[in-house]
Order: sequence, then structure tokens, then C-alpha cells
Amino acid sequence: MVPVVLSGGSGTRLWPVSRAAFPKQFNELLGESLLSRTLRRLAPLGAPRVIAGAGGEVATRRVLAELGLPAERAVFEPVGRNTGPAIALACHLLIEGGKADEVAGSFHADHLIADEDTFLRAVRLAERCARRGQVATIGIRPTAPDTGMGYVQIDPEAFLGEEPPPDGGGGDGREPLTAHRVRDFREKPDAETARRLVASGDWLWNAGMFVFRVGVMAGHFERLLPELWAAVRTVRPDLSNLAEVYARIEPVSIDHGVMERLDEQVTVPCSMGWSDVGSWDEVARLGRRAGEPGAAVFEQAAGDNFVFPLRDRVYGLVGVEGLIVVDTDDALLVARRGSTQEVRELVERLRAAGRREATEHSFEIRPWGDFEVLRDTERFKSKVLRVTPGHRLSYQSHRHRSEHWIVVRGRPEVTLDGAVHRLAPGDHIAIPQGARHRIANPGDELVEIVEVQLGSYFGEDDIERYEDDYDRS
Amino acid sequence: MVPVVLSGGSGTRLWPVSRAAFPKQFNELLGESLLSRTLRRLAPLGAPRVIAGAGGEVATRRVLAELGLPAERAVFEPVGRNTGPAIALACHLLIEGGKADEVAGSFHADHLIADEDTFLRAVRLAERCARRGQVATIGIRPTAPDTGMGYVQIDPEAFLGEEPPPDGGGGDGREPLTAHRVRDFREKPDAETARRLVASGDWLWNAGMFVFRVGVMAGHFERLLPELWAAVRTVRPDLSNLAEVYARIEPVSIDHGVMERLDEQVTVPCSMGWSDVGSWDEVARLGRRAGEPGAAVFEQAAGDNFVFPLRDRVYGLVGVEGLIVVDTDDALLVARRGSTQEVRELVERLRAAGRREATEHSFEIRPWGDFEVLRDTERFKSKVLRVTPGHRLSYQSHRHRSEHWIVVRGRPEVTLDGAVHRLAPGDHIAIPQGARHRIANPGDELVEIVEVQLGSYFGEDDIERYEDDYDRS
Repeated sequence: MVPVVLSGGSGTRLWPVSRAAFPKQFNELLGESLLSRTLRRLAPLGAPRVIAGAGGEVATRRVLAELGLPAERAVFEPVGRNTGPAIALACHLLIEGGKADEVAGSFHADHLIADEDTFLRAVRLAERCARRGQVATIGIRPTAPDTGMGYVQIDPEAFLGEEPPPDGGGGDGREPLTAHRVRDFREKPDAETARRLVASGDWLWNAGMFVFRVGVMAGHFERLLPELWAAVRTVRPDLSNLAEVYARIEPVSIDHGVMERLDEQVTVPCSMGWSDVGSWDEVARLGRRAGEPGAAVFEQAAGDNFVFPLRDRVYGLVGVEGLIVVDTDDALLVARRGSTQEVRELVERLRAAGRREATEHSFEIRPWGDFEVLRDTERFKSKVLRVTPGHRLSYQSHRHRSEHWIVVRGRPEVTLDGAVHRLAPGDHIAIPQGARHRIANPGDELVEIVEVQLGSYFGEDDIERYEDDYDRS
Repeated sequence: MVPVVLSGGSGTRLWPVSRAAFPKQFNELLGESLLSRTLRRLAPLGAPRVIAGAGGEVATRRVLAELGLPAERAVFEPVGRNTGPAIALACHLLIEGGKADEVAGSFHADHLIADEDTFLRAVRLAERCARRGQVATIGIRPTAPDTGMGYVQIDPEAFLGEEPPPDGGGGDGREPLTAHRVRDFREKPDAETARRLVASGDWLWNAGMFVFRVGVMAGHFERLLPELWAAVRTVRPDLSNLAEVYARIEPVSIDHGVMERLDEQVTVPCSMGWSDVGSWDEVARLGRRAGEPGAAVFEQAAGDNFVFPLRDRVYGLVGVEGLIVVDTDDALLVARRGSTQEVRELVERLRAAGRREATEHSFEIRPWGDFEVLRDTERFKSKVLRVTPGHRLSYQSHRHRSEHWIVVRGRPEVTLDGAVHRLAPGDHIAIPQGARHRIANPGDELVEIVEVQLGSYFGEDDIERYEDDYDRS
């Protein structure tokens, strides 16, 4: 089958760790990034594709490269249009690639699954249903009356399939998974309704995992969302008109646009330690990460607090309970447990107030590596630059600043007005205002450079590029 | 009269802003430092002296210099021995200076007083009492049943003096201040007792302000603390044996050692907007400071929180109430209002755990200026150095590190292995490992330098000094 990963969300509820410029699926929030885990989890099912948001290009390509997957596996939507258009685009591109008869599955890039074995079994049962022409979803047995979730009701009697016995026959004592007809849907119920649904036993969480034959789903799009489908069908295989097509597409979710309007939908109920990592309460529930080496939390007459220290600092909590504290370089969140859904509104207000920290971090991921701001003042700005082996920055100049570089790691090759300088740790080079310069890392060790900029303006837009490996202008 | 300022405390309850290496009296917590305010407040009474803690030498001298006061005004205790020995030492030095018949007053360096006019009036009335041979204190009319305070009970009938009418006679309509005999003492009462004392109307806060004739207080020391007084009397006028004398002195407070054992003590009751700035609750009560430029606090479903942002960051508070958040470069405090007395215990635990942040900041004040650590890693350490006009660092070398300096402000003069280099903003100079070097600021503008250290060890003890304006070895 063809697993398709949807990686377009911005995860504002996990601010300040997740921000639009580097959202939660890329973050190494709980160790490995969620996108990387998702791609590895899906690999046994087939070669995964990614439909990603435009802002995530550099980060997505980095994850693909780290997993040894070709960059062509990812397609970048010029703007977000919710899940309907993303899945329609995937179907269209698969049909164009001659895969109309294959089974595809769509999965979110930013969810966690503890029990990957059950996940794979459930998807394979869904795949059997999809081969028969059905659209199958995975339904998660709820662990709490969560009001932020979509719920699906199954008909336990309407039995539409069962897992085959394991290879070698005989069984291993586990109950086979079964597939059932879906009876009803409920989006984000109130607390009382959520309690009732969960108590009933036949309502499951919709985890946004859909499995279908590509041609079958295409037929549903054509019937139920004809305008969307007609538009998506015009996307050229080289994607050269994607921006133009997306500009006239209306946003719609796959749930509202297709799933809830199908005559028959199948769900495979199961428990697999699933989480949408949708709030800091949920991250706190998943357990505390060690944080930066050197970070230390001390509580005095305090308890039941969750501290997520992304900095090498001391945290003192005195007389407080039930708090979630999330600390990053340029922003701090202090929230009461149970109120973290409201972080989204906080971020909206930050954005409305024009605060950069609403959407950007103090670090930036670039095609050649990344950088981090150490200090930004009126007189100077200091950064640490890290250049990945085999990469180089563009050949560039700045109008408003001079720069000093001090190599602290690796062996960079610096071009300055045409002359090449091979540098080692401890070396310094000065880049005068207006001089053309570039850093390359021809070695196989990371290059790390402390940069001190001096001048009147330090914006990232003061770059004139003469040549670039990554086609930036 | 001779005002004596006691500046020995370490103010751990205001951690992380106040730490032993740079305690609260030096901090510009509420604008101007508390020590500076105290010295200016006392100036109309006479030329103030300072008895300070050893750790505060550099910071105390800086405050004296800023106020144009001679450095000789301060004496530094080699170790803290509480208020008894500090006042005994002041009396001894005043007697040696021929001032046995003068009136002295002792005041704390780290208290706030809003109504300075009433303060001066009260001290002058206390001075009149002191001239008659009495030991007089200023008693603060309590504004809350504070359990952390010492209380004195006056006898309202035992009237021992009154303010003279204002110059020019006739009065200005205000009630004259009066002096009364002290009847009883109570140190840190429980909550119930505190409420009763405050309700009674004749119990006042002991604000640690004592006014006395030097010879009279010397007599009390001789009679009540004969061992202490005998030891202090041996201190030589050049202070050369101060460390040796202090090593054998027992700590004792002036309250327990002298005041509570006097046959007669006088108190001048008044209200002067006094605060000992003794906890974050108290700082919060005094009103919020604007914080660093660029810092911004956003509350979502939150309120009644006090954020003290010492960094240019965004603070998001969601669903929380009644919190005090104090953010510094290397340490964060989150405390519940009303529990901030326990910050002291938190700091004790940090100290026991060997955390540098218990006692030191990420900046350090030096005789020549100060520095701030930007980043400290295994491979490099980066700092910003600021050199005060007219000052210079020692001529020094390092065994384990090389350094790069980039001038971002001012015009320093750098000596490197004997050669003098005059530098300007934008200039760079490399200091090889082992090379002798020094920075001087001969100009009248602050010199600011970004330093990047490379090597295997970055400790402050890797300094070999060849010459130093401040006699450090």
C-alpha cells in the first residue's frame, strides 16, 4: 500500500515549543521528531509520501534525508486548505503515477503511537476492507471523556471483517481485530455528552487515519466534492501550477467533506497507546522529558508540576501545584493543568500584537544547517551557525553590517571576495561590509561558528545572493 | 550625627535576583539600588559610613563612587557576625576617631522608605533623645499582621520627648512626633498573636533603626557583651587585624545582645511607607516594575499574577492566578503569593545541591566594570565585557584558553605581549593561549567587547596576573 503523511499543521497549542515557522511535527519534543517517528512507523506498510505545508520545506527535507528517503517523496502545499484538498492531491498524483488500483492510507505527521504492532495489524485489516472498495478508518478506544476529539459510533453487530490468523496458524492467544460498520459521528461534544459516549462502549475516537483504494476515493471526491476534484485534476505532474490551483480551492476537512457523507464507512476499533499530542496537558500526561543537560527543577512546598525546560537553567517552584511550565530561549509559558487548550488563544493574541515569538523561534533551520541567536542588541548581534557536512551557504554580501567569524568546531572553507581560506577551530576571519563571502563545510564533521555582526541593521533580509545551492534569490 | 549603614545581608528570600555574590542592596530591583537610596536618604543627617560584607566590596565601592563619596567610608567585615559586632565595630572606630560624644544612628542598607520627610523628622527626634543618653529606635506603625517581623510595645503614657515646632514657629498643622518608653518585645509572633498585637495599637514594628551617643552605646557593649567589646577594642585603626579579631567573635544581634536588656529604651512611633523589601510578596505589593525593554506579559484566563521579567522575552500565563514569576538569565522562580518566605529554604537546597545559581549570577561585577556570560559550552564560552572609563583589567595570561575580542563600543587600548593596540568598534584582536594581555579604557565612553574563548577549560581561576590596579593576586 501507499502510506500518505499529512504534515501541514502548525500546532499552536504547543506554543512556545511549536510555532508556525517550525511546528510540532519537526520538534524533538519527546526525543525523535514526530514526523520522523511517523515515517519509520509506516515504512513496513510501503514507501511513504508526504503532503506538507510550505513553511516546512527545509525541515521536511532534513527529516527525509536523515531517514535516507528521497526528497521527491514530499509535495509542499503552497497554502493550507485542510485535509480534504491534501488527500485529493495525493489521490490525483497517485492516479497520474498509475496507482489508481492501489490502496493508500492517510496519516497525521504529529501523532504518537506507543503500540506500533497493533497499529500495523489494524492498518492491514483496514487495507483488506479497502481492497473490497470500502473506506476504512482506525477507531481508537477512548481513554478519557475528551471534549476536543471527534467521535465515531460503530455498530458492534455489523461485522465487516476480521484479521486473518497470524502466520504459521494456531494464533498467539490475542483476540483478532475486527472491522465494523460506522453508525454515527460526533465532533467535539460537551463534557456531559463526552462522558456518555465514552461510557457507552461503542463510541471511538476518530484518529484521522483513513485507508482506501485510490480510485475509490477519487470517485467519492468526484461525487461529493466535484469542484475541488475538478480543480485538483488540473494540477500538472511537475506541480508547476500548484500555487495557482490552490489559490482557488476552498478549505474542507476530509471528515466533513467525504467521510460523514458516505453510505458505508468501516472502522477497526483498537487500543494502541495513541495520542494526538494536542496540548501541554497531553504532553504532561505522556511523561516528562529530561530536558536540557544541566537544567534542574527544585520544588519547595510544591508538587504535581510539569516543567519542560528547554534551557540549561535552574527552575525553583515554591508553594505551587498543578502547573505546567514550558521554557524556551525567548518565551516562557506558565499554565494551569487543564487549561492548556487556551494556549491557542494566547498565541492568537501574541500574533495580533505583532510579536515575532508567536510564529518564529530564536533559532532558524536553513537548507545548509541552522543558526541560533545568542544576543541581539542595537550595537551588535551574535549567533552560532552550524553547517551540515557537505553543505554551504549562499555566496552573499550585506549592505549594512560587517561580520566576524570564529570557528569553534570543524574545518570550514571560507570564500571571501574570491579567495578561499581553509580554517580550523580557533581561527578568525573578518567579513567587511559589502564583501562577498560564503561558508562551506567540505568535511564530515559539523562546522560550528560564532558570528558577531556589527552595523546599523541586522535583519535577515540584508542578504544579497550571488550563487546558492538551494535556489534562493 | 553619624549615620552608619549596615550592608551585610545576602537577601536570599529575593532569589534569583538577590544572591550572596550580589545581594539585594546592590540590585537595581526597583530602579536605583537600595544601598544608593539609603545613602542619599541619610545624607541630610551627616556623612554616612558603611559596614559591609566582604563579598560586596566591588559593588559597594561602585555605589560610593557613583554618589561621589570617598571609598574610605566603607569598612568590610571579613565574615558576617550579625548586627551586634557590626555596630560595636562602628562604635570602636568612631571612638578611635575622637567621636565618642557624637550621636550615631545605625540603619539597614536594603530597606525602602517612601516618606523621607517623616523619616528625617523621626531620626531627629531620636537624636534629641540620644543626646540625653538614651538609646532610641524608630517604631513603624504596622500595616499588616506580619509574622516575619519583630515587634516592640510602647507605653503611650510614658512620654519621653516631642518634636520641637517647625522653624518659624506656628506649626504647619501636622501632629508632632513623640517619643515613648518601650515596655516589651516580641520576635516573629504566630499569626494569631500578630493579629492581636497589631489590633492593640501600642505594638510597633522594629525596623532595625537605632540612634545613640557613641560613648553610651560603648558603655552598654562593655557591660552587656564584655567579650565582644574587648575583642573589638583590639581592632587596629588600619584594620590590619580585623580578620583575626572577627575569627574569634560570636555572632549576636544588637536586639538580643543589647536592646532587649536595656533598663530603658525609647521609641519614636511613626508611619513612613517603610518596607524591608523582605520577600517577593512584598516586592509585588510595592508595585510592578516595567522590566526589560522588550519584555511582554500576556495573560489568558489569568490574573492577579506578578511577573518580574529581567529578560527581553515573552511571558504567557494561561489559567493561573496569584503567581509570582521572577525570570533571570540562568534561573526562574515560580511561587504562589503568600509562600515566598519559603524561597529561603529553596535557596538552601540549591546550595546543598552544589548549584552555582544559589549564590552567583550569570554576570559578575569587577573593579574595572562587569561581564555577562552569553553562552558556556564544552567547546567555547562567550561573554560581553564592559570596561568603565578610566579603568583597566589586570595584565594577565591564561594557560588553557585562547580568546578573540571584538570591540562593539568605545575605544579600548589593548596590550598584547608588550605591544599596545588602539582599537575601535568593529575591530578584532586575537589573544593566543599563554600571551600576556590587558584591556584599558582610556576614553570617557564605556568600552564593550564580545569575547569568544576557546580551549579545554574556561574557569575564572585560569588567570595569571602580572600587574593589577586593584591589587588582586
